[in-house]
Amino acid sequence: MNFNSIIEKKKKNIELNESEINFLIEGFLNNKIKDYQMSAFLMAVYFNNMTKNELYFLTNAMIRSGKKYDLEGVEGPIADKHSTGGVGDKTSLIYAPLVASFGIKVAKISGRGLGKTGGTIDKLESCTGWTSLISEEEFNSNVKNKYISIIGQSENIVPADKVLYALRDVTGTVDSIPLIASSIMSKKLAVRNTSIILDVKVGSGAFMQNIDDALLLANTMIEIGNLYNRNVSVILTNMNFPLGRSIGNALEVKEAWETLNGNGCTSLEEISTTAAAITLLDNGIFNDYKIACEEINKVIKSKKAANLLKEFVINQNGDFDKIINYDDNFKTKNVIEIRSEKKGYLNYDSNSIGNLSLNLGAGRETKEDKIDFASGIYLNKLPNEFVNENEIIFTLYTNKDSVEIFKNMSHECYKITDNKNESDLILKIISKNYNL
Amino acid sequence: MNFNSIIEKKKKNIELNESEINFLIEGFLNNKIKDYQMSAFLMAVYFNNMTKNELYFLTNAMIRSGKKYDLEGVEGPIADKHSTGGVGDKTSLIYAPLVASFGIKVAKISGRGLGKTGGTIDKLESCTGWTSLISEEEFNSNVKNKYISIIGQSENIVPADKVLYALRDVTGTVDSIPLIASSIMSKKLAVRNTSIILDVKVGSGAFMQNIDDALLLANTMIEIGNLYNRNVSVILTNMNFPLGRSIGNALEVKEAWETLNGNGCTSLEEISTTAAAITLLDNGIFNDYKIACEEINKVIKSKKAANLLKEFVINQNGDFDKIINYDDNFKTKNVIEIRSEKKGYLNYDSNSIGNLSLNLGAGRETKEDKIDFASGIYLNKLPNEFVNENEIIFTLYTNKDSVEIFKNMSHECYKITDNKNESDLILKIISKNYNL
Repeated sequence: MNFNSIIEKKKKNIELNESEINFLIEGFLNNKIKDYQMSAFLMAVYFNNMTKNELYFLTNAMIRSGKKYDLEGVEGPIADKHSTGGVGDKTSLIYAPLVASFGIKVAKISGRGLGKTGGTIDKLESCTGWTSLISEEEFNSNVKNKYISIIGQSENIVPADKVLYALRDVTGTVDSIPLIASSIMSKKLAVRNTSIILDVKVGSGAFMQNIDDALLLANTMIEIGNLYNRNVSVILTNMNFPLGRSIGNALEVKEAWETLNGNGCTSLEEISTTAAAITLLDNGIFNDYKIACEEINKVIKSKKAANLLKEFVINQNGDFDKIINYDDNFKTKNVIEIRSEKKGYLNYDSNSIGNLSLNLGAGRETKEDKIDFASGIYLNKLPNEFVNENEIIFTLYTNKDSVEIFKNMSHECYKITDNKNESDLILKIISKNYNL
Repeated sequence: MNFNSIIEKKKKNIELNESEINFLIEGFLNNKIKDYQMSAFLMAVYFNNMTKNELYFLTNAMIRSGKKYDLEGVEGPIADKHSTGGVGDKTSLIYAPLVASFGIKVAKISGRGLGKTGGTIDKLESCTGWTSLISEEEFNSNVKNKYISIIGQSENIVPADKVLYALRDVTGTVDSIPLIASSIMSKKLAVRNTSIILDVKVGSGAFMQNIDDALLLANTMIEIGNLYNRNVSVILTNMNFPLGRSIGNALEVKEAWETLNGNGCTSLEEISTTAAAITLLDNGIFNDYKIACEEINKVIKSKKAANLLKEFVINQNGDFDKIINYDDNFKTKNVIEIRSEKKGYLNYDSNSIGNLSLNLGAGRETKEDKIDFASGIYLNKLPNEFVNENEIIFTLYTNKDSVEIFKNMSHECYKITDNKNESDLILKIISKNYNL
């Protein structure tokens, strides 16, 4: 077997077999297949796609390249959730305690953020002391006893995805549906879970710009999940505007906490509840979507879910009081209020909001950059809300001094129009158990 | 401008402009664009092809990467010929003196062979002393005064093609028509010539396996040539069997000499005459194909062309007497006669013949290998000739001792069948001046 014969088959759209795909992935990892060969292969995949079999073999080879988390000693349903990424998306922090309230374990491997905002691990690190650097034994015991645990994405987890993604990122081969699907799913399937809910963002600020591509990605991931006997469901959600009121790290943990205490904004609550309800259906806790949603509302009202978030953070050494007493702990040198220049309906540009948040200090441009947990943006006015002239639209928090630059950047972040520009938040739910 | 935007355009089949293509080629040469990025781009070209404009910009950027040969002081028509490569193809050695007989200069940059047989330069080096390492001034003066000169392909000639080809060779991106066309044409157009005749081989032993691909390649090269105001004509010729009677280096020079003395075999004479006649038409020497062929026969009969070959070799320091007194100079340790096991019509497999010739010592597998000029194969019987049982079909010449291995390999090189398996030698002539 050699690279030439494999690339010729892929070019001619002939299905590759398991040993050929293993040869590719193993060869790439041990440097027998060079990066310039792999990038040519990836581009051929971009054009010719992958068959269901090839996708299975690829995902398998990726999973096999690293460590598997078998969650020894953990019984019952184990859920995971993944979002393709959006500005202000702190849904996982709400989702996990919601499903844990019903006895479903959440065992999550998370990454740090690179780009506009921090990842889940970055956000949680605003609770001083919170750590994702726990042993597998601790991870297992956390999941078993506290229902929720999040572990950092170590070098051992799907290393093939790490090197492939780094190559795709610089060779124009990121936006290939089978490559995205196998990248996401290999990391989800490396953990022994029973259900996976995927939040595929669609819109100008998201990776999938149109609903057709998003649907294709969703169905591809569901297909892979089925081959592994997992319950995989997908919600397609709108990413033309930021999610919730807060963009930043500590700000987002605070908003998650408020939402779990019944004080969230509708959009965030809706997505979190929907994702959690689907997971409850997928694990047989309920068999009616409407009832699942009602029961979720009850665990919000009773503060059961809120307490589970707090316990989870404390259990991994985090100081959750920092969030509860937010104003005493997260002060920034500059607080900049952005006001409306005229009256009308507010339209946000989530891409620009994300860029501004990065510049305020909430994200990192290189792996080495440090995140400023307190910095970020609070949306005093929500998308499509009516504003009068000179009202505060949003507030910037930053420890940096470039106040004028940030004010100028703010103008890119919104438009005030005469008419509402409404669109659905949840575009589609794909789940064999969804029944509304 | 950056690589990402260029690869996105190519992926989406949006035409690249001149500065984008220059950015790619210049960036690759100075290592700003990495090999893993270029290979992804080349694969995108494989799938999405190139427009006429892109091809022009690419060929231009490649030519500009190196030295141009302006042939200062040379007047009148200057011809070049290129073959996409075949077993036993010594046509250039016959073509050059034929057209030179009519006052057309032949200024040729040739490479060495890698693979089955030597290149034109390797073949000529069988004439001890013959050198392609001449200065540009000598090249110009040779062309001016002796009508024919061949110079080696130095590092300076289209260096972009050298690095691109090396990358294509290991990334499955060799068989892309626009990339093949620009690679060939950039090297032909780096020399100031007036006409180019391209011999595109078609068949199992050739790069182009079917006539449709060969036609596409032919027309693409003609298109590029037209953009540079050159007369470019193409002959598509059959490469299902070896060309002529000899495969090897000194053996092929000898066969060229014999053909120019009127003792060649029909197939070789036909292709050489056709190519030369087209060149005579393209440069306005004659305007009727039939007359051009008749006049070519006259310069063969008069030995005018044969003398020009001899003079050219001597002029570049070669000992042509070695060829004239062949048997005294090229002896091999082993001479192996391969005989027919039954009677019938002979079919050669040119690919196997080429491999055998390589093993006998006539080619090189790596750049460092030395060619044994005397080794090779002489076809006592031509393709489709009738043989009786136990007749000599072909003869192997080698200084290696693996006689039994070579005998075994010989069985792969031919089949004897009950019926003739005839096919045309010249499949198509594409030339605006061809009028038969």
